[in-house]
Amino acid sequence: MERPRHQGMAKNTNMRWRLPLVCLLWEVAMIVLFGVFVRFGPEADAHWEEEKRELNLTSDMENDFYFRYPSFQDVHVMIFVGFGFLMTFLKRYGFGAVGFNFLLAAFGIQWALLMQGWFHSFKNGKILIGVENLINADFCVGSVCIAFGAILGKTSPIQLLVMTLFQVTLFSVNEYILLNLLHVKDAGGSMTIHTFGAYFGLTVTRILYRPNLEQSKDKQGSVYHSDLFAMIGTLYLWMYWPSFNSAISEHGDAQHRSAINTYCSLAACVLTTMAFSSMLQKKGKLDMVHIQNATLAGGVAVGTSAEMMLTPYGSLIVGSISGIVSTVGYVYFTPFLESRLHIQDTCGIHNLHAMPGLIGGIVGAITAAAATEDVYGKEGFIKAFDFTGMYQTRTPSVQGGFQAAGIVVSLLMAFVGGAIVGGILKLPIWGDAAAENCFEDEVYWEVPEDEESDVYHMHNPDKPASP
Amino acid sequence: MERPRHQGMAKNTNMRWRLPLVCLLWEVAMIVLFGVFVRFGPEADAHWEEEKRELNLTSDMENDFYFRYPSFQDVHVMIFVGFGFLMTFLKRYGFGAVGFNFLLAAFGIQWALLMQGWFHSFKNGKILIGVENLINADFCVGSVCIAFGAILGKTSPIQLLVMTLFQVTLFSVNEYILLNLLHVKDAGGSMTIHTFGAYFGLTVTRILYRPNLEQSKDKQGSVYHSDLFAMIGTLYLWMYWPSFNSAISEHGDAQHRSAINTYCSLAACVLTTMAFSSMLQKKGKLDMVHIQNATLAGGVAVGTSAEMMLTPYGSLIVGSISGIVSTVGYVYFTPFLESRLHIQDTCGIHNLHAMPGLIGGIVGAITAAAATEDVYGKEGFIKAFDFTGMYQTRTPSVQGGFQAAGIVVSLLMAFVGGAIVGGILKLPIWGDAAAENCFEDEVYWEVPEDEESDVYHMHNPDKPASP
Amino acid sequence: MERPRHQGMAKNTNMRWRLPLVCLLWEVAMIVLFGVFVRFGPEADAHWEEEKRELNLTSDMENDFYFRYPSFQDVHVMIFVGFGFLMTFLKRYGFGAVGFNFLLAAFGIQWALLMQGWFHSFKNGKILIGVENLINADFCVGSVCIAFGAILGKTSPIQLLVMTLFQVTLFSVNEYILLNLLHVKDAGGSMTIHTFGAYFGLTVTRILYRPNLEQSKDKQGSVYHSDLFAMIGTLYLWMYWPSFNSAISEHGDAQHRSAINTYCSLAACVLTTMAFSSMLQKKGKLDMVHIQNATLAGGVAVGTSAEMMLTPYGSLIVGSISGIVSTVGYVYFTPFLESRLHIQDTCGIHNLHAMPGLIGGIVGAITAAAATEDVYGKEGFIKAFDFTGMYQTRTPSVQGGFQAAGIVVSLLMAFVGGAIVGGILKLPIWGDAAAENCFEDEVYWEVPEDEESDVYHMHNPDKPASP
Repeated sequence: MERPRHQGMAKNTNMRWRLPLVCLLWEVAMIVLFGVFVRFGPEADAHWEEEKRELNLTSDMENDFYFRYPSFQDVHVMIFVGFGFLMTFLKRYGFGAVGFNFLLAAFGIQWALLMQGWFHSFKNGKILIGVENLINADFCVGSVCIAFGAILGKTSPIQLLVMTLFQVTLFSVNEYILLNLLHVKDAGGSMTIHTFGAYFGLTVTRILYRPNLEQSKDKQGSVYHSDLFAMIGTLYLWMYWPSFNSAISEHGDAQHRSAINTYCSLAACVLTTMAFSSMLQKKGKLDMVHIQNATLAGGVAVGTSAEMMLTPYGSLIVGSISGIVSTVGYVYFTPFLESRLHIQDTCGIHNLHAMPGLIGGIVGAITAAAATEDVYGKEGFIKAFDFTGMYQTRTPSVQGGFQAAGIVVSLLMAFVGGAIVGGILKLPIWGDAAAENCFEDEVYWEVPEDEESDVYHMHNPDKPASP
Repeated sequence: MERPRHQGMAKNTNMRWRLPLVCLLWEVAMIVLFGVFVRFGPEADAHWEEEKRELNLTSDMENDFYFRYPSFQDVHVMIFVGFGFLMTFLKRYGFGAVGFNFLLAAFGIQWALLMQGWFHSFKNGKILIGVENLINADFCVGSVCIAFGAILGKTSPIQLLVMTLFQVTLFSVNEYILLNLLHVKDAGGSMTIHTFGAYFGLTVTRILYRPNLEQSKDKQGSVYHSDLFAMIGTLYLWMYWPSFNSAISEHGDAQHRSAINTYCSLAACVLTTMAFSSMLQKKGKLDMVHIQNATLAGGVAVGTSAEMMLTPYGSLIVGSISGIVSTVGYVYFTPFLESRLHIQDTCGIHNLHAMPGLIGGIVGAITAAAATEDVYGKEGFIKAFDFTGMYQTRTPSVQGGFQAAGIVVSLLMAFVGGAIVGGILKLPIWGDAAAENCFEDEVYWEVPEDEESDVYHMHNPDKPASP
Repeated sequence: MERPRHQGMAKNTNMRWRLPLVCLLWEVAMIVLFGVFVRFGPEADAHWEEEKRELNLTSDMENDFYFRYPSFQDVHVMIFVGFGFLMTFLKRYGFGAVGFNFLLAAFGIQWALLMQGWFHSFKNGKILIGVENLINADFCVGSVCIAFGAILGKTSPIQLLVMTLFQVTLFSVNEYILLNLLHVKDAGGSMTIHTFGAYFGLTVTRILYRPNLEQSKDKQGSVYHSDLFAMIGTLYLWMYWPSFNSAISEHGDAQHRSAINTYCSLAACVLTTMAFSSMLQKKGKLDMVHIQNATLAGGVAVGTSAEMMLTPYGSLIVGSISGIVSTVGYVYFTPFLESRLHIQDTCGIHNLHAMPGLIGGIVGAITAAAATEDVYGKEGFIKAFDFTGMYQTRTPSVQGGFQAAGIVVSLLMAFVGGAIVGGILKLPIWGDAAAENCFEDEVYWEVPEDEESDVYHMHNPDKPASP
């Protein structure tokens, strides 16, 4: 093992002080803010026995924990294993994919608990948290994981943390506007998570455009086993997506319905993805990039409407269409975005999240506008759209209009926010790698030696493997 | 990277139009049939509030969703990650294993929702679905995944879709005969899923016998990391099997008991598998094939009886025996089946599903026949075997007889159905690979280049790795 | 493939008869003991309908199964996939890591059901088991998995089984002393699982000290993909740890609170781990060893206090500190332990489990001592610490004292027990590998050929890859 290590790889990006400093200072800030603001909600507090008596609950089963904890754990897996491993497809960026996703999500959920807490769970000067807050924090971070997909391999961990800080903030504002001001329904986050997250990320990567990125072109591909690692991510996202879309729906029929709709949509999406993946290749061979990503579009595209009476066949239609759109996107739009619009989208989030997210918003608006008391039942209708209090007189078509407005707001927030945050990330102080070192773990990670030499060998086919 | 790609690999199997056509046409058929037939069941419908009042339910917790959703998700993981990754052990067929499993299961669950719906959930011209239907659809597809194991690496994706179409149909008929006509208990599917699925697959692979399969012998093995990927599949199947066997049992004690029995049986199975794996090798070394597969036989073998009063020690006994039978099968029966009976069983489903499935059916029959009111309690006895209505007077020993009849029916359905479907799959129109291209992803998938060259190198040890 | 296999590797460790014998005899013993002692508890027994009437329960939902089964499955995944894959980081010991962990855990849960059953679920001569027993058995085995981490790669499967037999026994005694005699709270097992398990394992590895271990130094590292496999283990441990710490807490607020505290602690731990991992490397690069392990310390460190009113910010503080301690441990303590104290700790369990376990015990003692009726509410206070019956008059500060005593007892049990068991394992009859064959799967496993030749090549850089 005396072969010299690849020179130039070891470029010092000066993470040594900056990354620790950011991590530690921010964690201290979290501790202080949590100390001032965050407390257990009534269902997690030791006063629960009194609460139970007051609310006349006869069983501990009525604790929200039991309604939502299994879904929470599924969502948790999606964020950390799902997104983390989905991005390990790159041959030399597996550590960065799964490790940086871990880092940004772990910071993001803390900050999201605060931001979303101030907007939604703030009582008497305290944020009262329970399992639903944990799910919502994971959701919020999901939008950051999506944006991470666009800039994967091209940014430093500090840039990712800075982006997380801002994106979580903007996410929470956007979510507040949609859910509270526009009174929009979006339980699975087609608009708040996917549309916002994806267009935010795409705008950021546009601002961070690297003209010389083809210098690391050889590292942008996958190897056999990295594609299998990525399939772990894909399958966990796919399997648990019914939990994602139903996790914060109303107890009872709404959670049940969301899961069924999402299950159907995803199943259909797999078939149309396979069909178009084969059809659009010269030799009819399937492309792992499509299978890894476009099969998930069906989950994104029913994110708004899954808890509505979309019906199983409606879900099949939406899932089928989104699989097609997403696969076509990978074949035609991604190269176009890169060459013409200078949008370098590493994971193709435009195809997996942006377009299906828009479809999801639109389908949600239509499904809401088409709702009738006949289909939902009198009580079910009011419950499904929360047409109570000041929204008592809102009609389905008006609701549909507000849903559509929610898409526009999410897009605006994404473009404006992404531009500003992209500008901040462009500052030359964050330690990002040179173009020829993109998609390369060795810049930020200690990488085991022997594999390094493999790569070394791979890139120098004219040199003998062993002297 | 200018080395020429391996010639002959690129054989065009004409998937380009046929696969898309089948996928798209069938998905359209699903949409139409779902549109005509499938609606939400009362617990997923927005009229749930009225339903609740009618049934006098006081809490949303009584929605079946909360009784079964966690088990459903576990079963879902078993079908897609469990079976998918279990089959990635082949060094060059990981994409096909996990990808085709994904494809056939995604189609299969849609078709199963219809087929099983017509038989079991049909009311006033509509199929009303809820979480239990999703579980049953996954179960049904599980039997296809099992059959896939026998023909893994030797069939085209179109053949797999055709097989899925027919097998799901036959499964549903067989299930109807067993559960409704014979009034047999089989919650974990020892008979309906494993015995039927395995003998169906073995019959199909017998019909599709390839005399020249040794031409791809070099690709039938595993590599170090492919064996680890396969262990992901194994462990998820093993860990979640208690959910599998309890997922559709009656609420309360039956679900609870099924989980415990399965947990015990699987634990015992691991020890006897390890024992025999070591004992049957010359040097006493353990064989990953056994650990990956035979450790699961304990779950199969209590599939019928887990919800009965099998007792924990009974489970240990069944699990121990099935681990032994399965491991012995891998060492002695699989080579025998191939050389003498011309049954080429890629994954050894005869050892993992067929024989343990038979054991499961027999143990179920015995456990049912041995049931007494003393052990079950008066109410528990009636509830456990559903001895109500026209079955009010059935005795345990008669029930045991019907259970045994269920095994025979499943076997007949598997042999006859497998022979017919095998014959259909033998038609030379489905684009299967030549014998020398079996177990090779490159026939149907875009495979990353660098690994290809590794394999190229591997197969030509007399050529230098680098020119 | 005619290159000769690596000589010396094939050393016969005489597993062929010894391993099967131990496995089979012990399994027979389990069957006999289960037959004599183990029966279904009332919630899993077919008499449940009568039980329900007696306890005046109106719904099957009140069955403990529905309160704990989702958490049980998460814990189950942690034991088998979490610990199993966490240890696959070694380049040539993946089979042993995941396979032996599988073996010892499968045996351990059976023996734990008995041992813990005799102490905690023994009624009228029978051990009555339900889902909580399954969780506790998994917990108990968790402590063995931890100890396995210290001796990973250096012991034979028989040694592991012998250790499991003794450690489960000692665990159960220690647990009985803590929970029943000292009336200590330790739902997430900071003391019973982590402190005991880790110091037990460290003592065993000290006794088994191998002075020539540097002979297999080249195999003690990781390769690129083995590090990714290990991250699967890490993430599943990390994600499901909230389930681990809440799995056996009281129904309602306690389970809810445990999950939230653990979620917060783990999130904070990731940031401080990343900070210190970067800070302590010369070039500021992150080390996968830290990310794989130290990020989990936050879960260990709130194992005792998570179900108490630790508060979210308290959890952040504990998590932050434990991440720092653990990372610093990997950098400075592990080399010190090896060179000075002759403690060869393969996975660094001293950093991940021992020190954070101690922190967890201490934090638990302080949190208990600081409890007030004001914070918990009158009822909540009594319920949280079970201050009923003979403990009616125990004060928080006294409880804190007993909690501290629990740490001391666990340590003593670990040191004394570990020394004795280590002595037994040192007997030259268990077939452990020679020093130069440590961390090498080929000693106990059939390993696929082609990868072997890779390794062969790797170890002989002065030989050409291909003749």
